[in-house]
Amino acid sequence: MVNYKCFLVVLLFSLVLSFGLLCSAADNPSKRGRLRHDLNPEDPLTRYAKCQRECRQEEQSQQPQCQQSCLRQYEQEQRSQGQVQVCQQRCQQEEQRPEMKQQCVRQCREQFEEQNSRKEEEEEEEWEGRRQSHNPYYFPRGRHAQARFQEDNGNFWVLQKFAEKHHLLKGINEYRIALIEANPNTFVLPHHCDAEKIYIVTNGKGTLTFLTHKNKESFNLVPGVVVGVPSGSTVYLVNQDSNEKLTIAVLHRPVNNPGKFEEFFPAGQGNPQSYYRAFSREILEAVFNTRSEQLDRLFHGKQSQQGMFRRASQEQIRSLSQGATTPTEKQESFAFNLLAQKPKFSNQNGQFFEASPSEFQLLRDVDTSILGIEINQGSICAPHFHSKSTFVVIVTEGNGYVEMVSPRCSEEEEEETRSGEYRKVKARLFPGDIFVVPAGFPVTYVASQNQNLRFLAFGLYHRNNSRIFVGGKDNLVRKMDSAAKELAFGVPSKLVDEIFTDNPKESYFVSGHRQQRAFV
Amino acid sequence: MVNYKCFLVVLLFSLVLSFGLLCSAADNPSKRGRLRHDLNPEDPLTRYAKCQRECRQEEQSQQPQCQQSCLRQYEQEQRSQGQVQVCQQRCQQEEQRPEMKQQCVRQCREQFEEQNSRKEEEEEEEWEGRRQSHNPYYFPRGRHAQARFQEDNGNFWVLQKFAEKHHLLKGINEYRIALIEANPNTFVLPHHCDAEKIYIVTNGKGTLTFLTHKNKESFNLVPGVVVGVPSGSTVYLVNQDSNEKLTIAVLHRPVNNPGKFEEFFPAGQGNPQSYYRAFSREILEAVFNTRSEQLDRLFHGKQSQQGMFRRASQEQIRSLSQGATTPTEKQESFAFNLLAQKPKFSNQNGQFFEASPSEFQLLRDVDTSILGIEINQGSICAPHFHSKSTFVVIVTEGNGYVEMVSPRCSEEEEEETRSGEYRKVKARLFPGDIFVVPAGFPVTYVASQNQNLRFLAFGLYHRNNSRIFVGGKDNLVRKMDSAAKELAFGVPSKLVDEIFTDNPKESYFVSGHRQQRAFV
Amino acid sequence: MVNYKCFLVVLLFSLVLSFGLLCSAADNPSKRGRLRHDLNPEDPLTRYAKCQRECRQEEQSQQPQCQQSCLRQYEQEQRSQGQVQVCQQRCQQEEQRPEMKQQCVRQCREQFEEQNSRKEEEEEEEWEGRRQSHNPYYFPRGRHAQARFQEDNGNFWVLQKFAEKHHLLKGINEYRIALIEANPNTFVLPHHCDAEKIYIVTNGKGTLTFLTHKNKESFNLVPGVVVGVPSGSTVYLVNQDSNEKLTIAVLHRPVNNPGKFEEFFPAGQGNPQSYYRAFSREILEAVFNTRSEQLDRLFHGKQSQQGMFRRASQEQIRSLSQGATTPTEKQESFAFNLLAQKPKFSNQNGQFFEASPSEFQLLRDVDTSILGIEINQGSICAPHFHSKSTFVVIVTEGNGYVEMVSPRCSEEEEEETRSGEYRKVKARLFPGDIFVVPAGFPVTYVASQNQNLRFLAFGLYHRNNSRIFVGGKDNLVRKMDSAAKELAFGVPSKLVDEIFTDNPKESYFVSGHRQQRAFV
Repeated sequence: MVNYKCFLVVLLFSLVLSFGLLCSAADNPSKRGRLRHDLNPEDPLTRYAKCQRECRQEEQSQQPQCQQSCLRQYEQEQRSQGQVQVCQQRCQQEEQRPEMKQQCVRQCREQFEEQNSRKEEEEEEEWEGRRQSHNPYYFPRGRHAQARFQEDNGNFWVLQKFAEKHHLLKGINEYRIALIEANPNTFVLPHHCDAEKIYIVTNGKGTLTFLTHKNKESFNLVPGVVVGVPSGSTVYLVNQDSNEKLTIAVLHRPVNNPGKFEEFFPAGQGNPQSYYRAFSREILEAVFNTRSEQLDRLFHGKQSQQGMFRRASQEQIRSLSQGATTPTEKQESFAFNLLAQKPKFSNQNGQFFEASPSEFQLLRDVDTSILGIEINQGSICAPHFHSKSTFVVIVTEGNGYVEMVSPRCSEEEEEETRSGEYRKVKARLFPGDIFVVPAGFPVTYVASQNQNLRFLAFGLYHRNNSRIFVGGKDNLVRKMDSAAKELAFGVPSKLVDEIFTDNPKESYFVSGHRQQRAFV
Repeated sequence: MVNYKCFLVVLLFSLVLSFGLLCSAADNPSKRGRLRHDLNPEDPLTRYAKCQRECRQEEQSQQPQCQQSCLRQYEQEQRSQGQVQVCQQRCQQEEQRPEMKQQCVRQCREQFEEQNSRKEEEEEEEWEGRRQSHNPYYFPRGRHAQARFQEDNGNFWVLQKFAEKHHLLKGINEYRIALIEANPNTFVLPHHCDAEKIYIVTNGKGTLTFLTHKNKESFNLVPGVVVGVPSGSTVYLVNQDSNEKLTIAVLHRPVNNPGKFEEFFPAGQGNPQSYYRAFSREILEAVFNTRSEQLDRLFHGKQSQQGMFRRASQEQIRSLSQGATTPTEKQESFAFNLLAQKPKFSNQNGQFFEASPSEFQLLRDVDTSILGIEINQGSICAPHFHSKSTFVVIVTEGNGYVEMVSPRCSEEEEEETRSGEYRKVKARLFPGDIFVVPAGFPVTYVASQNQNLRFLAFGLYHRNNSRIFVGGKDNLVRKMDSAAKELAFGVPSKLVDEIFTDNPKESYFVSGHRQQRAFV
Repeated sequence: MVNYKCFLVVLLFSLVLSFGLLCSAADNPSKRGRLRHDLNPEDPLTRYAKCQRECRQEEQSQQPQCQQSCLRQYEQEQRSQGQVQVCQQRCQQEEQRPEMKQQCVRQCREQFEEQNSRKEEEEEEEWEGRRQSHNPYYFPRGRHAQARFQEDNGNFWVLQKFAEKHHLLKGINEYRIALIEANPNTFVLPHHCDAEKIYIVTNGKGTLTFLTHKNKESFNLVPGVVVGVPSGSTVYLVNQDSNEKLTIAVLHRPVNNPGKFEEFFPAGQGNPQSYYRAFSREILEAVFNTRSEQLDRLFHGKQSQQGMFRRASQEQIRSLSQGATTPTEKQESFAFNLLAQKPKFSNQNGQFFEASPSEFQLLRDVDTSILGIEINQGSICAPHFHSKSTFVVIVTEGNGYVEMVSPRCSEEEEEETRSGEYRKVKARLFPGDIFVVPAGFPVTYVASQNQNLRFLAFGLYHRNNSRIFVGGKDNLVRKMDSAAKELAFGVPSKLVDEIFTDNPKESYFVSGHRQQRAFV
């Protein structure tokens, strides 16, 4: 009896232990500690060198991004040190009043230190996001995805199930994202899926064809083209270009099991294999009214042809592209070109495209909107949230970063007992990165100083979604009653209005620096 | 190898054991045994004293209810003993036939004993319901709820997830109920949620304002007012009254994760904290085109102002209530007043209000109807069930009890292998109690002898729901074919008709005693 | 500490072990090995005798099917040996060229051996399907179902939850199938369910009556009649016939908890019990305005009448059938007759009936179509898949088999890392068997040589479903571009066209043998 008790204790202990390990993995305080200790705000150059050394231990493909990030960090630190110096110089003007001068210098230093400590935290968050991918919302390019077909001529990647990345994403777990990457002059083998699909071209040129139970549909592909492929339609593609890759993001809404879909290939001698091979010979002979030998040539031959991606001749490409429709800004049949539309908003800092299920019938079955955003270099997409949709953002060009507000307690599995505490989720964005923005979470995107940031996004569960700005000229606070502002912010409503109503001049996209320099 | 086997046994044993413990917790036969033993039908007064002693061990807030329940029990026993005496007196009339007289007296006693043994069972069920809350459908006021904000000026409670209360309720687990309780002259801080919401005022007077991406909506609140607040809308409230609390029940249908929602506060220096604080300073400076110092005054100031509930001045209250719409019986924009409607049914025993998604557009997104019921003292809401909706009942005034039929086997996790066995689920109802009635489960509500019982209810998954009476004049049995009645009840259909067709005189609400005394 | 580590290892080990056992149960290679070893292609008669011996160890009810299967196997082997002999005789014609003759004989034998090895594999799959029920999609009659009422006069079976049979079926887990079997002249007790229901008569004659909150509906039942019974409606049935059983398949879409439903009986003294008995006596007395004694006669009497199924007199049957509507090919109120429709397709090999939610309003709430198929003896339903619906097939008459293509990897719980590999799922079909065909999975049905195969099917999640043929004249490959055919099959498109375009002559239902014998 003593033994049984003991083993029960062991069982509980091991459960608690594994939970503990899980938690520590999610938070990793030792790592945070080490980083904090390593920081040496006095010497940005030393830190830059060290950062570069660390980059060399990264995967080959991640190295340039890592290096770039080191440089950015170094520049920021330089700039911030410069600000202190400017601040302290300003103090010299107070020469008449020495006590004021001293206080001024001290304030400058304090401000600098506060900035630095703030930055430390931010940097840690960044590092975590970029390197360790603890960030539940961030899927760095090539991570958290499985290759179903990884071949010389192309790749077919499927992003991990959302709920397996983090339990917070289980609300969108019925959706799956796949990425197709076809080399120049490559044909993608016909296949159907047990899923409703939306193809969106992120790069390159090609032709997509699919067969419904009635018709054949064929579309020319360029970046921004959106094609809706109904569940069960057999689809094939070709990359027309002789130089550039054709890359496509595919949103799947599976029809059999939420979040699980399969490809079915009619042709293929292995890897993939034709599904016809699974039928009995007698049945195939009868339904095709043919001899066994003929069937063998198609399905059982040991041909050298393997894989989902096949080199195509110029003639074959021409033939496949013949008669294909070129999608326009409006939907006819199953496709349209998002980027051929007039932007829903644009100013000198960026532009914004959107297609919703209410306008585009092909988006209705997947209940998803499509967003296209370009933020000019150095500009910011004003902080906002979406009322109902979760957005899955796919970076297509340039770089920058995202900042999102996440409730602190919601990241633990247990029941939420607190509310009103938030943390910043921050991630650098490079082409191919994927970032998930849940409904209601305030978010902002920032383009780097030297490149425009472009991304496309799927807005899952779109019905009646609206975009609500919390920053920029259209922020929601300005609409509140004066008394509400007073009571909420605990300051006279005039002060609240100054920030939320009087100062902001731009909507949607704002320039990265204050427009009127009031500082000095 | 022997050891491994042994450990497997331990593992299995511990699983079986924990399952056993779970089961015993749900049934608790030892407790039932003890209660049965304690019962002493001969001496109601002794039992009353003992019951009162036990109440003193209850939580402070539960004591008055407990005492009231003791008294009720005592009265019932007295009454039942009185009935035996009346019965036995009646027997004296049979003086002419002594053998009949003896039989009559014996029958009276047997009837009393049977009533008492039946009562014992019922009382146990009641005790379980009120005290131990094993009842899967019953959420006594203040239990099974977590305070997200528990402050001097008000409380914000969220009811436990339904499926965590009991697996039988997992069908409604995507919904959550919250309760807001604002003290007199108190302001509730602006916040938005990742959920569609229906507010229903259960007590008090106030003003609710919310901001959609387009407009500001503002409504005067009195009991019975229903306001639909779309997901992502920033809402704030004020209790106008200087004496009474403002209490509101809020139905949430979360949009990110089923059954999980968060509040996002734009203003707040801590507990709650403003979500603006999670954005980088550079970004806020740019998007608000302002200096860091100005931002600090709003977001980083160490003000004494804390909490979600804030005292408001008379002037602020007046200003917040200005221009607010007073909801009527019909929906204009986002609100209506359920209790300003003509009742869908009323008679001398009670009245019945209902608003369905087909009439009220604001109820469509949450797919929920709203019910308001008042049962006059001593009356009964005739037994009925709902064809499709699960009702979540919130008691607002008075007291009484509910009786519901529950399939016996459905309360175990395993697959149902039996059918056609039921148990009574009974719970006393006091203001603030919540009770869940699944679709198809026959249920009846009874008002106490001295107070009308009032409650509101959310009818979840309303589409095409109908109410089907199994008791009262409109009961379903009277509609059956005669042959079906005969075969089903195993007695001549005339006898069935007597009970289901001839005798009942009232619909919906019936008086608590037989209308025509046919008892000699 | 060493001990704790050790116990963790034990815990992990036991988890791994149980997972291993699970996997081995799903695959059972040892069994496969044994079967392979037992096969003796040289002596079909010996194998036939052995197969028969094995059948005697089957359950009583399974024996005739088992014997039939043995015979079929023997005949096939005989036929295949005969083909080798015919082939070898043909070689005698090559007398002029002795080296050709030898090669010809060798080819004949090789072909035979290949056929045999292929057959071995197929047979094993068959055996697994029929005997061991590892097949996730196959529910042999009487297995995987639980009797809620198993009585002298009838049975009420409920099929196991789909997800409990196999995780692959969790997508349809909210639906449940029940089977009612009422003996001649038997009445089925009134009851309501917390589920939307579709009744479909598979055999016999009767009358079904149900009470909504407004009306009484009554329908005459013959095979093919479909009745939609809304959730909460109290339904009763009678088998009119004096000789034949009345059998009905019932699709349930529960409204409280997905995949869980209960029956509620207003009448019954035990097994089932009336739900009225769970209400307090005082309440029943009040709402029925009646005396306790009267209630006792109906609900508490110790009558001999027990069970859900009751013998009815000829007079009672006549009275119950009076005034019932006879459903036609079109829906009026809540019923129609599928088999009274003009078939959607028919030829000399079979016919095909279909009713979809777009045409039949009663199918909308369950979002399900109804299919009726008759395949003439020796014919084949051409391989096809459905774009969106999962079909649950219920065999009603005759026998035959089904072959379905299933992705190999999808049968493991873990994340799919491969794609494009398939296995054949094969099962013999006899009346009462149930087979599930997920969306997108190519499938074919074959009738036996001596009997037409008839089945009905529920098409779950029907909206916008379409049927896509991969074999027969309407196959999808013929619609592909020539270049796509070339690239996909790796042979000149002319060869592809020969098989997919030129040869096939029949649609939907094709004869089991090649129509034009081109084999010399």
